[in-house]
Amino acid sequence: MVYGLKWEGCRVAENEWFPASVPGNIQKDYGEYKNFPDIHYGKNVEMYEAYEDDEWMYRTYFDVKPSGDERLYFVSNGIEYEYKIAINGKTIFEHEGMFTKAEIDLTDYLEDENCLTVKILPHPLSGEKRGTGRDEAKCSVKPPVGYGWDWHPRCISSGMWEEAFLETRNANKICECLCTYELSADFSKAKLTFEIDCDVTPEITLYDPQGNIVYQGTEPTFEIENIKLWWCNGQGEPNRYSYTVKTAEDEASGNIGFKTVKLVMNEDAWIEPALFPKSRSAAPATVELNGRKIFAKGSNWVRPEMFPGVCDRSTYEPLVKYAKDANMNIFRCWGGSEIFKESFYDLCDEMGIMVWQEFPLACNLYPDDNHYLEILNQEATAIIKRLRSHACITLWCGGNELFNSWSGMTDQSLPLRLLGKLCYELDRDKPFIMTSPLMGMAHGGYTFVDFDTNKDVFYTFSHAENTAYTEFGVSGISSPEYIKTFIPENELFPPREGGAWEKHHAFNVWIGDSWLCPSTLERYFGEITSLESMCENSQWLQSEGYKAAFEEARRQWPKCSMAINWCYNEPWKVAAGNSLLNYPAEPKPCYEAVKAALRDTMASARIPKFDWNEGELFSAELWLLNDSPEPVKTDITAYLIMGEEKVKLLTWEKVSAEPNLHKQGHTVQYILPHFDCDSITLLLESEFGISEYKLRYYPKVTEIKKKILNQ
Amino acid sequence: MVYGLKWEGCRVAENEWFPASVPGNIQKDYGEYKNFPDIHYGKNVEMYEAYEDDEWMYRTYFDVKPSGDERLYFVSNGIEYEYKIAINGKTIFEHEGMFTKAEIDLTDYLEDENCLTVKILPHPLSGEKRGTGRDEAKCSVKPPVGYGWDWHPRCISSGMWEEAFLETRNANKICECLCTYELSADFSKAKLTFEIDCDVTPEITLYDPQGNIVYQGTEPTFEIENIKLWWCNGQGEPNRYSYTVKTAEDEASGNIGFKTVKLVMNEDAWIEPALFPKSRSAAPATVELNGRKIFAKGSNWVRPEMFPGVCDRSTYEPLVKYAKDANMNIFRCWGGSEIFKESFYDLCDEMGIMVWQEFPLACNLYPDDNHYLEILNQEATAIIKRLRSHACITLWCGGNELFNSWSGMTDQSLPLRLLGKLCYELDRDKPFIMTSPLMGMAHGGYTFVDFDTNKDVFYTFSHAENTAYTEFGVSGISSPEYIKTFIPENELFPPREGGAWEKHHAFNVWIGDSWLCPSTLERYFGEITSLESMCENSQWLQSEGYKAAFEEARRQWPKCSMAINWCYNEPWKVAAGNSLLNYPAEPKPCYEAVKAALRDTMASARIPKFDWNEGELFSAELWLLNDSPEPVKTDITAYLIMGEEKVKLLTWEKVSAEPNLHKQGHTVQYILPHFDCDSITLLLESEFGISEYKLRYYPKVTEIKKKILNQ
Repeated sequence: MVYGLKWEGCRVAENEWFPASVPGNIQKDYGEYKNFPDIHYGKNVEMYEAYEDDEWMYRTYFDVKPSGDERLYFVSNGIEYEYKIAINGKTIFEHEGMFTKAEIDLTDYLEDENCLTVKILPHPLSGEKRGTGRDEAKCSVKPPVGYGWDWHPRCISSGMWEEAFLETRNANKICECLCTYELSADFSKAKLTFEIDCDVTPEITLYDPQGNIVYQGTEPTFEIENIKLWWCNGQGEPNRYSYTVKTAEDEASGNIGFKTVKLVMNEDAWIEPALFPKSRSAAPATVELNGRKIFAKGSNWVRPEMFPGVCDRSTYEPLVKYAKDANMNIFRCWGGSEIFKESFYDLCDEMGIMVWQEFPLACNLYPDDNHYLEILNQEATAIIKRLRSHACITLWCGGNELFNSWSGMTDQSLPLRLLGKLCYELDRDKPFIMTSPLMGMAHGGYTFVDFDTNKDVFYTFSHAENTAYTEFGVSGISSPEYIKTFIPENELFPPREGGAWEKHHAFNVWIGDSWLCPSTLERYFGEITSLESMCENSQWLQSEGYKAAFEEARRQWPKCSMAINWCYNEPWKVAAGNSLLNYPAEPKPCYEAVKAALRDTMASARIPKFDWNEGELFSAELWLLNDSPEPVKTDITAYLIMGEEKVKLLTWEKVSAEPNLHKQGHTVQYILPHFDCDSITLLLESEFGISEYKLRYYPKVTEIKKKILNQ
Repeated sequence: MVYGLKWEGCRVAENEWFPASVPGNIQKDYGEYKNFPDIHYGKNVEMYEAYEDDEWMYRTYFDVKPSGDERLYFVSNGIEYEYKIAINGKTIFEHEGMFTKAEIDLTDYLEDENCLTVKILPHPLSGEKRGTGRDEAKCSVKPPVGYGWDWHPRCISSGMWEEAFLETRNANKICECLCTYELSADFSKAKLTFEIDCDVTPEITLYDPQGNIVYQGTEPTFEIENIKLWWCNGQGEPNRYSYTVKTAEDEASGNIGFKTVKLVMNEDAWIEPALFPKSRSAAPATVELNGRKIFAKGSNWVRPEMFPGVCDRSTYEPLVKYAKDANMNIFRCWGGSEIFKESFYDLCDEMGIMVWQEFPLACNLYPDDNHYLEILNQEATAIIKRLRSHACITLWCGGNELFNSWSGMTDQSLPLRLLGKLCYELDRDKPFIMTSPLMGMAHGGYTFVDFDTNKDVFYTFSHAENTAYTEFGVSGISSPEYIKTFIPENELFPPREGGAWEKHHAFNVWIGDSWLCPSTLERYFGEITSLESMCENSQWLQSEGYKAAFEEARRQWPKCSMAINWCYNEPWKVAAGNSLLNYPAEPKPCYEAVKAALRDTMASARIPKFDWNEGELFSAELWLLNDSPEPVKTDITAYLIMGEEKVKLLTWEKVSAEPNLHKQGHTVQYILPHFDCDSITLLLESEFGISEYKLRYYPKVTEIKKKILNQ
């Protein structure tokens, strides 16, 4: 029997009790109690910084009594981050770590009326390293992003972020239930094994994806046939079996998506290096799902809320649905975030979105010291056990960019060696990588024009030769309507450093003039004259830039095996940045562009650059892309649209492509005549719909005319 | 109490008993019994191939009886490879794996007279994959080299290769004794912990390197001060403490060399890659010993005997001593070999030779299957426990070239993930790498002239930019006197394919015309006319080639951190190859060249190529190399010797170098005049002795003269 609890919270220094949401975060509750203004508006988020060194308290009262042989447990699925639990004034549990379950037998401490308290200690290193930003995150297994990132303000949460309840337990209690399976080589049969921690023998019932019973009994190991495999989006159905495990008074249930997953070598990767002295070949980066090599296309999923405690299925659902609709098949759950709630992974299971799950390590030199290793060991064990049975879990990864100079970790770092060991012990049939990027894989760029090379994203990606693009982005400015909801009216235009625009990541967040990138806008469109045109032009660049990068990565298949942009979503309102959806789940124009660029089967064009001049020889190489498991065939006709005119360039007839393979085709070429317009559009028509590329066009201005215009 | 045993052996198919050496190998015993001729001569080694599918039996008789509470154990430190042990006809132990100790309690099976038998099963996969060579090695944890390599004939051993004896045990028996320590950050103090598996409390005595008692007592954990660290050759003394652990009737003893070892990033390695899309930085490859970054210089140690059972301290001692004398500080114990006997590691401890120890995996796709993983788990556990306390052990490595195309393993291969896990669990303070080479490191070339690029070794290495050269070699022909001991007289000259020369690796062993490389000899020296001149010229190339490669790798320090040539020694008589010492321990001329090239402090020259023409502008860049922990200073004078003439080119005055750092200097240039000789020698004189480079020189021959000569 489970009993819900009602909680109050308190800032210890203040000793005023207020209603607390569990699950939730204590800072949010406090802000609501104190009527803090909208956290997304202006610089309001800074109000929370004053409470980082505080201790907080939760309390609840109850009079539940176990009967007979029963024991009464307090169960919490996770409390952030370091805490002490007391009953009736007596401390009975102390803990560090937010992902480990607390299960505490209260029976021997019970009185008629009971008060349970949870004391939340200040954030780790509180005060000591204040101001070093990310660096503060490296001694704890907390989501590092809360310490501030180039798209996330400093906002550190804590508290009872997962479910908590009382539970009476007896011999019928199913304490643990793990279902594992082995698939036959032809994927037709599965041998299931249930490891159940229970004092009595429960009955197991297994249902197929249609809900028919395919096994019922008490044997913990059995075989089933005619397996319907779990496939990711685009490759088949995300078939899921379900099971119940029942005793007289308890029931556990779960889902199974039968699959095998490997990370295998990319095409031609064994050929390099060629000459002596000879190094190793690049690390494998191709997902092989159920024996089929597939292109992983998707996005970097980040926390959808700054206060992770408030998330539930309704937070995640629209976001995951948008990914499915955009033809994505993978999320990289980036190591800067927390591990998400069960319902996020349920949704990915249901919608066929593979999850590359990172541990909460990012851009830091996590230490080799014993205390950190001990907490990481405990937390990573909890994380793996919590997630390993989800069909969506495809890849474990130690964390983000740990082998790059700004982090300074290496293959020898003990935290990463520990994570490798744990993944082997607890979930060895899934791939594990220490970090992203590994050798051959790549992160970046993040802007339309590269700050170092001054080349546009069309050029950069068509000249890159990586095995996987696991982060890349094109920054863009959010829409005027959206911006007006959090930038005060007097700051709206022109955008300036130092104020709300900067707080919301338009200025001084990364190299160059990111994320607003006014120099790029001026390069292509001249002086910035209004909020509306600035946003429109920025979104044009972002949409076409994303299209160029995603489609180019796809064209490089099977030498390149992944295109996962930075980033998918965002946890608060951002003025400019790389995401495809604004907070909480509002698609930006670039979302539609990416959706079009990720269609399983489509015509695509490799265009060498974004901006074209009158008189120049325009060229574009045509492709038929096919990420579907079926062979396809079509005609592809290319047009160039210049103002009102639609010029037919070419028809590439009866183009066919094998399952999960593309076809490279003709290069269309056309000397650009004079038109009185500022863009041209390459249009490809095929049975699979239309592909459009809207490019910058400059009609020729004679030297004499130029002089006149400039005067 | 320990009781030795006397053994007989038998080929089961034959049922004739013969004397068997334990430790030893049954095939060798059988060959001696049957009077097989010298295994090193001609093609005699092939005689052993007929017995690969055989079962063999060992037997011994004894009447030892334990008294009172004692138990009688049969102990073997290792038996190759799959075997069954029976006493008085009853099988009591079955096992696969040659590195795990067998400790079998015989007490309950004893009669008045006892017969103990050990049945050796045929080699794994016997017959099934015959003829696929290396491939046969991939399902077992045996030394793969026995299946045949480009410097080792097919010759597969088995049998009781390690010590075996009877032992009575009582409560005083010390079953296990592990001493670990933690050094303070300044390396001055050590906290020691003894984990002793014994029913009584033993007394521990610790002696310093001079033999003075520094601790005596029964506390298993204690601290000592004023630590004298263990240093590798060239960096300090290989100081070793020793201990005894005593009970009333038993004693264990061991040595401790206090050190810390890390694998850290090479100089400037974090700078790359520079641009987006950005991959990871190269893997760390610099040894940091006791906080000091050092250049690892040494050689690849391979099995010194084809029958590993016959090895003992006297086999290893001269070889390890030669390495120390050659200024080496590291052996890479290559994964193709077995793990060696304790005395090898003792010698490395004593002489300050760091050991990079690989597990017995090489050039194969070791499988992800459960049986192989189970045996590997057991064997690797035994190997780590056996070796981890040796001061010399510096680096664990999964095996040889496993991430290259000819092996096909990756970071995802379960055997390598398992080895990483075990090294973390059992010896986490030492570095672990999955294979060599890793990203940035390199293997090869192996010949004076590269078969692909047609460039000489001088050019190849001065244009390479790797972090570590962990295999590279220059092949050469052994001396005529040596060759005459195993090539039949009628085959001696000219060397031909198909016969004894080929059996001894002169022909058709690897790409090109390796290892004899007649095309290279002809390129520099014209037609091959005699055995003597062929050998002499080949050894000239080998000596100067090794010097060029080793010194170049040293000059690249600290961007490059290792020069470990392929290979050091050999287990049988080789006609041509890369080793520095012929079997069993005979230095080749190239040994002396390498010894000179590895002097801790020396003048060195970067010479762009080996062969020079009259009239050409000779150039050489001067360096002062300093691998010593002291600052050094000297004058360096460069001379060119041409025949009788010694031309002084330059004196570079008062050159100084910091500890473990080199100094780059002037480039000497000189237009080569006409001399009537076929070589020139660049000579560098300094306080640290002479460095000599003997180069090929071609006096100009006029076109008319050429025509005359050719007629």
